[in-house]
Amino acid sequence: MATVENRQVVLERYIEGVPKVTDMAMKIGKIELKAPKGSGAFLVKNLYLSCDPYMRGRMRDFHGSYIPPFVPSQPIEGFGVGKVLDSDNPDFKPGDFISGITGWEEYSLIHNTSQLRKIQPDDAIPLSYHLGLLGMPGFTAYVGFYEICSPKKGEYVFVSAASGAVGQLVGQLAKLHGCYAVGSAGSRQKVDLLKNKLGFDEAFNYKEEADLDAALKRYFPEGIDIYFDNVGGEILDAALLNMRIHGRIAVCGMVSLHSISDPKGIHNLYCVVPKRIKMQGFLQSDYLDKFPEFLEHVTKNFKEGKIVYIEDMNDGLESGPAAFVGLFSGQNIGKQVICVARD
Amino acid sequence: MATVENRQVVLERYIEGVPKVTDMAMKIGKIELKAPKGSGAFLVKNLYLSCDPYMRGRMRDFHGSYIPPFVPSQPIEGFGVGKVLDSDNPDFKPGDFISGITGWEEYSLIHNTSQLRKIQPDDAIPLSYHLGLLGMPGFTAYVGFYEICSPKKGEYVFVSAASGAVGQLVGQLAKLHGCYAVGSAGSRQKVDLLKNKLGFDEAFNYKEEADLDAALKRYFPEGIDIYFDNVGGEILDAALLNMRIHGRIAVCGMVSLHSISDPKGIHNLYCVVPKRIKMQGFLQSDYLDKFPEFLEHVTKNFKEGKIVYIEDMNDGLESGPAAFVGLFSGQNIGKQVICVARD
Repeated sequence: MATVENRQVVLERYIEGVPKVTDMAMKIGKIELKAPKGSGAFLVKNLYLSCDPYMRGRMRDFHGSYIPPFVPSQPIEGFGVGKVLDSDNPDFKPGDFISGITGWEEYSLIHNTSQLRKIQPDDAIPLSYHLGLLGMPGFTAYVGFYEICSPKKGEYVFVSAASGAVGQLVGQLAKLHGCYAVGSAGSRQKVDLLKNKLGFDEAFNYKEEADLDAALKRYFPEGIDIYFDNVGGEILDAALLNMRIHGRIAVCGMVSLHSISDPKGIHNLYCVVPKRIKMQGFLQSDYLDKFPEFLEHVTKNFKEGKIVYIEDMNDGLESGPAAFVGLFSGQNIGKQVICVARD
Repeated sequence: MATVENRQVVLERYIEGVPKVTDMAMKIGKIELKAPKGSGAFLVKNLYLSCDPYMRGRMRDFHGSYIPPFVPSQPIEGFGVGKVLDSDNPDFKPGDFISGITGWEEYSLIHNTSQLRKIQPDDAIPLSYHLGLLGMPGFTAYVGFYEICSPKKGEYVFVSAASGAVGQLVGQLAKLHGCYAVGSAGSRQKVDLLKNKLGFDEAFNYKEEADLDAALKRYFPEGIDIYFDNVGGEILDAALLNMRIHGRIAVCGMVSLHSISDPKGIHNLYCVVPKRIKMQGFLQSDYLDKFPEFLEHVTKNFKEGKIVYIEDMNDGLESGPAAFVGLFSGQNIGKQVICVARD
């Protein structure tokens, strides 16, 4: 087997605040396109890589979280879709497509298959959707909405970062469930997508609202039953004021912001007592037994045209750092993916 | 029937901040010791009145809560134990003892029996305990611990305001359930009671801890599974940092503090995501179907000496305002009750 160049995106150094492009660097390694005998590993050509906000937590030098930090000078790790080129693992054969944790590089030798699954190519479903709609973000939306929010038909649902990888599916699941769904996002273009493409009943640009409490009162004159929180901070504070009795808040995404999240703190938590609010943080990885039903439900509705999905695709591994950094200023429109190679 | 003087404690005016004694006033009314024919009401001689933090919410001119505000110049309302003197209600007869919502006055004519129940005098149980151990605060502890916290044997339980009307029972229920219980309180005397009378494994005076996070790490080196929050603010913020994965926080009492609660806000809410914390506000009144089982469980354990209860009893209706105000600076030791008359 040939030894080839293997371009990589590595973590340059641990970060403190918001990630910058210069916190990452391109590096050119070499790799033999072969899975060593006896290793149990397999060699993958990475096709699509996923930019997810949680990855920021792995850029910090903090070992107390649910997932360890990245290793400086080593390729960033994240969800990806790849094609097996060579394998010493009987479960994965050359030509198989996989979705799971891989490296930000052209080729990866994969030993750990615990967060990996084989995917069946399907002409009706872009391969990259296994990083979004049918991957971790989609499953996060599914678990958060059904398991954490216990939705009932007719309930009022608010989703922040609603056009993002997770939020866009939450709103669509809510509509399919017979709920009323309103989303917030950070640009007019995103608001337009929410209303005209993703089927939200209403949407607003939080950056244009001087008073978020008033905005929520306008969109939810009856109050909010379910708030799917992807952002924390001021929007959470305003949502607390507008929750209905026995409301539920699924806390999905504060993790992505926590080193810069609202330095003023959350002031309206007292609302949880008189309103008997349940607020719950969750990780999709606790619910993996539900993954098959998720896949079936979402695939079926997608193929029937009842669910759509918006992707923001950047071309080339070298576009990775900027695409990732863009997540934190809301540059992406929909699920941010990097195309490393088409096949 | 005679018409007699009826001393009352009335709300002088709506308040903004912490209640002061001068926000209330003594007034002398007159009352006929008779339930008018056709009224369906009954006349009660009030024996014991309860001082509860939630009452502060009713002193504000705010109509959006789960319970309406008091009416200025009218007697304050609250839980009390009384004896029926005359009745036009077939369910309540002269000589019956009742526990429920009554007025801060010597005699009350009661029309609304929705939050009232008859109690059987029992030599083994002081009548006033129906305002604490066997009343709303005790039931709050029971519901919060069993229904909201879903405790498991061996779990680590932290209770704030632990010697208070609710907290002291939470800790004892936790111990009976096989949990490890640590309480915080605001004086050495209270800490001593927690450790030596109420059976907590450990207790500390939060006023003597410069670093609450460090204090909790000392008492919970393995972290906290259940935090029963009676206070909010800085202790909640420190508890969030020390929760274990899948921890539960029952939010019971921020309502009592919310107009003065931590102006800095809560900063560590982001912890709910990686730790998958469930945080839930609750009111005992949503669980009234559990009241009989609560009464049976707690009465049985009390009679067997497995549960004790600490009361702070002030004598005379005129002691009411100061006793109530004292709740907010932690002057009471145990459940604050006012004795209006012994029988």
